[in-house]
Amino acid sequence: MKPGIPKGTRDFGPAEVLKRNYIFDTIREVFIRYGYQPIETPAMEDLATLTGKYGEEGDKLLFKVLNNGDFLRKADEEALSARDSTALVPSISKRGLRYDLTVPFARFVVMHQNDIPFPFKRYQIQPVWRADRPQKGRYQEFYQCDVDVVGSDALIYEAELAQIYDEVFSRLGLKVVVKLNNRKILAGMAEAAGIAPQFMDMTMAIDKLDKIGLDGVRNELSGRGIGSEAVDKVVEMLGITDLQALRSLFAQSETGLKGVEELSTVMDYLAMGELKNEVRFDITLARGLNYYTGCIFEVGVDTSSPGQEAIKMGSIGGGGRYDGLTSVFGMTDRGSGVGVSFGAERIYDVMEELSLFPADGARTLQLLFIAFDEAAHRHAFRLLGQARAAGINAELYPEPAKLKKQMKYANAREVPFVALIGESELAAGTLTFKNMATGEQQNLAWPAIIEQLKDR
Amino acid sequence: MKPGIPKGTRDFGPAEVLKRNYIFDTIREVFIRYGYQPIETPAMEDLATLTGKYGEEGDKLLFKVLNNGDFLRKADEEALSARDSTALVPSISKRGLRYDLTVPFARFVVMHQNDIPFPFKRYQIQPVWRADRPQKGRYQEFYQCDVDVVGSDALIYEAELAQIYDEVFSRLGLKVVVKLNNRKILAGMAEAAGIAPQFMDMTMAIDKLDKIGLDGVRNELSGRGIGSEAVDKVVEMLGITDLQALRSLFAQSETGLKGVEELSTVMDYLAMGELKNEVRFDITLARGLNYYTGCIFEVGVDTSSPGQEAIKMGSIGGGGRYDGLTSVFGMTDRGSGVGVSFGAERIYDVMEELSLFPADGARTLQLLFIAFDEAAHRHAFRLLGQARAAGINAELYPEPAKLKKQMKYANAREVPFVALIGESELAAGTLTFKNMATGEQQNLAWPAIIEQLKDR
Repeated sequence: MKPGIPKGTRDFGPAEVLKRNYIFDTIREVFIRYGYQPIETPAMEDLATLTGKYGEEGDKLLFKVLNNGDFLRKADEEALSARDSTALVPSISKRGLRYDLTVPFARFVVMHQNDIPFPFKRYQIQPVWRADRPQKGRYQEFYQCDVDVVGSDALIYEAELAQIYDEVFSRLGLKVVVKLNNRKILAGMAEAAGIAPQFMDMTMAIDKLDKIGLDGVRNELSGRGIGSEAVDKVVEMLGITDLQALRSLFAQSETGLKGVEELSTVMDYLAMGELKNEVRFDITLARGLNYYTGCIFEVGVDTSSPGQEAIKMGSIGGGGRYDGLTSVFGMTDRGSGVGVSFGAERIYDVMEELSLFPADGARTLQLLFIAFDEAAHRHAFRLLGQARAAGINAELYPEPAKLKKQMKYANAREVPFVALIGESELAAGTLTFKNMATGEQQNLAWPAIIEQLKDR
Repeated sequence: MKPGIPKGTRDFGPAEVLKRNYIFDTIREVFIRYGYQPIETPAMEDLATLTGKYGEEGDKLLFKVLNNGDFLRKADEEALSARDSTALVPSISKRGLRYDLTVPFARFVVMHQNDIPFPFKRYQIQPVWRADRPQKGRYQEFYQCDVDVVGSDALIYEAELAQIYDEVFSRLGLKVVVKLNNRKILAGMAEAAGIAPQFMDMTMAIDKLDKIGLDGVRNELSGRGIGSEAVDKVVEMLGITDLQALRSLFAQSETGLKGVEELSTVMDYLAMGELKNEVRFDITLARGLNYYTGCIFEVGVDTSSPGQEAIKMGSIGGGGRYDGLTSVFGMTDRGSGVGVSFGAERIYDVMEELSLFPADGARTLQLLFIAFDEAAHRHAFRLLGQARAAGINAELYPEPAKLKKQMKYANAREVPFVALIGESELAAGTLTFKNMATGEQQNLAWPAIIEQLKDR
């Protein structure tokens, strides 16, 4: 048989794994620097935990795992005779694959609430699975990187999460813009425009701004039955960039003022430290259908930064504050939290496009020994052990094959240095040390080679 | 609803994740030191790739993923009316969860044979899923750590894999015994005892030695129809510890001599370097039903090592050389390989029992700020940013709560140092710096605290 892999899934070869790990490790280091702790949850969750949490569409996209053994024995006979797939599922499948990291996190907090400290600062970097139709950039298996703190409504966490974005992307060498808004400010806008009951309609329309432009938002708002005067007011407010200017506009909106207050506090905290990227208030940030109740975040590539002008990429991260994370699992207190996530797959694509991965990131092998006869090969094996003991990632071509064949392997492995040993080297007690980038060759004693490589 | 997780799966809290990563990171570093490269394969594979590779029992233990959408539309009507679960599966499930890392590796090599260098030295550390009945120490989701080289029959790889075991366990602080044998030596034993056709019977019996003892092996051999003279010969040979002593015994067995030759070469290579653990020939090592054709490996805890006497644990790693890894997927050349795996779950349990995890391994937070009023809290937030910029993992309790509440959190997080700021500290420009282990408190200026923590 000719083997394949399921649609929408991917194999990762060495170079890709190393680059992906470079991103994950960078993110993880910053999370730890900020006091967040890792958790891991199983790939399979009870379907009862997952079902109903992601809307009707989400339920359809859950991967369900067939019960093992004679699963038809307990199958729902009615659903079976009606050939009703949806109705049959609960009787033949108890488990599903993790669809995101938020629901498992909520379940984790509820199950372990007596063992964890609150506020609970956790991060989680694991794959999730969705039965989405595969297309360019959309996979059925992909990683999520989430960082959340639950059990406190203190605004220092909003500031800290913005700082985390700033620090991670600074370490990755990517210039970004971190946009901040607050759902309460959006609520204030609706109140100020006299369309408080249509808050969600307004939010949904604003959320499309990037795609459809200001005129599109106008049409969208009108199409949702919002009067022209209110539409004008909303569109006018979308032009506001000064957070404090909202105070007078929101004079009649307690919620709106609360939003301005919260975001101002966050901005004050941020002003206490140095930021390497632009972090700014963006009144047009809405974060669509999400369950956010306070501050919201979104990160995009800074296309005004030199070299990054050509990047076409949507948001590479986002998040916000939410309430009642755990209430669906019966835990009603300490449910306020705030969190953000990193779009690792998109970050990978942007970093690839901008060549931001360290040149030697994918190159884990530092030295390859090449030997020309059996005696030299044995000698090389001894030196190989010494190289590794000295902390050098090294390897020996498995047999004293033809030079061409061995050099072909050296090139395929992209090894920066090769040490050649033949009869003459063995007699002289030296090695031919070749820099593969420059082609330069030197005849060196073994200790000199170790010295050269040790601190790389 | 009261949430749970599926039987046989686990949540990992922060301390567990950090300990598990300590093991994985150590293993990974050594793999890279030895020139191995990472690959990752999808959690879901086509069922066609997995089915029939693990025997009948294995097929039953595969987790099958239900096709999405109206899966009954294409269901096998005959199987459905017969209520035949097994016959129904192929028509309602195309995908299954990864059962081990070997079959996906073989598939990977075949699919990517034109893009990878041979010999291909790869490692893979990923979870696998098996529908085994859950019991103590046996899970439905667990990690495997495999390292293999495929496309070469050079014996330096056998030596290198034994060195990898030696190095990994040395770094983990666990004394082990690495046992080596060769399937060809077992074949030679069968020939020398005149029971060549019953090679597998003999191997299966020897494989049970640890469990049933020498008398048990005798009975097992007799029970499998092996004559008493041959049984005596086999049992006598099981007492041999000197590899070279086999040469005369195997005078008539070409295969047996080849096995001695191969293992001697491996031992010669190993003698060229320093080993920190005992690596020895063990003629009683059989590795059961596996598909090995040459050298075989097994690692156990060294219970003769001081402090490790009480450890009761089976093998914590094993492997061997195989042929035709990829032939099942239609690639018939370059299929010879050799590989070993690490039993990470068991290694974890042993390390836990022996308290081998570094004391601060689970402690990622170095400093917690505690503030007593709003002004101090804001000041602390500023210092917090400076601490993090200086490379210190730090955090601030979210609000100026009561000391008792904040200290309770400090204890729960097991943070080694706390910096307290109140009115008097703010006025004096200092902090109260508390060592949580000793209880010692000092009044220090901020730069002095940074200095103390920076290099920890």
